[in-house]
Amino acid sequence: MIILGIDTAIRKTGYGIIRMDALGSLEILDCGIIKNAPSLPHSECLRRLAGGIRELVSQFKPDVASLEAAFVSKNIKTAMILSLARGAVITALAESGVPAFEYSPKSAKRAATGIGDAAKEQVASILAVMGGLDIAQIPDDATDALALAYCHGNLAFHANAGIVDMPVPI
Amino acid sequence: MIILGIDTAIRKTGYGIIRMDALGSLEILDCGIIKNAPSLPHSECLRRLAGGIRELVSQFKPDVASLEAAFVSKNIKTAMILSLARGAVITALAESGVPAFEYSPKSAKRAATGIGDAAKEQVASILAVMGGLDIAQIPDDATDALALAYCHGNLAFHANAGIVDMPVPI
Repeated sequence: MIILGIDTAIRKTGYGIIRMDALGSLEILDCGIIKNAPSLPHSECLRRLAGGIRELVSQFKPDVASLEAAFVSKNIKTAMILSLARGAVITALAESGVPAFEYSPKSAKRAATGIGDAAKEQVASILAVMGGLDIAQIPDDATDALALAYCHGNLAFHANAGIVDMPVPI
Repeated sequence: MIILGIDTAIRKTGYGIIRMDALGSLEILDCGIIKNAPSLPHSECLRRLAGGIRELVSQFKPDVASLEAAFVSKNIKTAMILSLARGAVITALAESGVPAFEYSPKSAKRAATGIGDAAKEQVASILAVMGGLDIAQIPDDATDALALAYCHGNLAFHANAGIVDMPVPI
C-alpha cells in the first residue's frame, strides 16, 4: 500500500510518500514541501497546491492519502485560510480518485513514536530508522506528513489483523 | 464583460452568469444551483463543486468571477466547512484562469437595490427587471449569486468611468 501523507498549509505544505508491506514494514519513497511565496495571492497558492498534489498522485499513484485533521484554532481567520488550502488539497485528491483520511497530529506522532507529544526530531529520527533513510533527507516540514502517512499505514495494518476498525474517509 | 457570480456553500452553491455592456446594461445568461445531497461526504461535495464551476466556465467563458466574501461566523466549524468549499471553488477558477473578486452580501445587495439589507425578493425582482427575465426563472438560492455578479459589473462600470477604484482579486 502506497500512502501520501499531507500536512497542509497555505504557504508551506509538507508531504511524505511511503510504502508499507503486508508485514507492516516501512519504505519512504519521497518527502518534501510545496512552498508558496508570501507575495502570492491566495488563488495562486491554491492553484499551485492542487497542481502539486496532482503531480505527486500521478508520479507515485498512492492508494490513499492521510491528512492532518483541521484543528479548531482560536484564531478564526487562520482556521479559515487553512480550510481554504485543505479545500484545494481534498478537491485535487477527490478528482484523482484517491480516498483521504484524516488524523490529529497527536495520533500521527503516537503512531510513529508511541508518544503523542513527541518532539519533531524524535519523530523524524524514528521514521528515518524505520524507513531506511538518512534523517538529513527528511526536511523539518515534511516530518508531520510522513508521520501522518505512517499513522494511516499502521492503522490499516492493525485493522487488517482485526485489531482495530478503520475510520471513515473524509 | 461576462461575470460569473458564486454564492458558495458545501451543500447548495448558487451561481448567476451575466453580461454587462459598456453602457452598464445587464443581461442574465443563466442562473441556478449546484446541489450536493446531505449524504455525500465532503470530498465528493468538493469534487462536484469544482467540476460544476469548471463546466460553467467552459460553457460561458466568464472574464471574471464574483464571490461572496467569507463571513466570519461565530460557529467556527461552519466557517471552516464553508472555507473548504471556497477552496474548491477558488482552485477551479484559478486553474481555469478566471480572476476572482469577493464582495460582502451587503455590498452585493446595495449594488442591485441601493439597500444593503434588502430582502431576497426585492433583489430578485430588481435583477429580473434589469436583466429582462421573468422573476420565476431566478431560483431563490441563485439571487445572491446574481447580485454578486451585478455588484462586480457595476463597480467595473464605475471604475471604467474613473469614479471608483477596483479591488484586488483574491
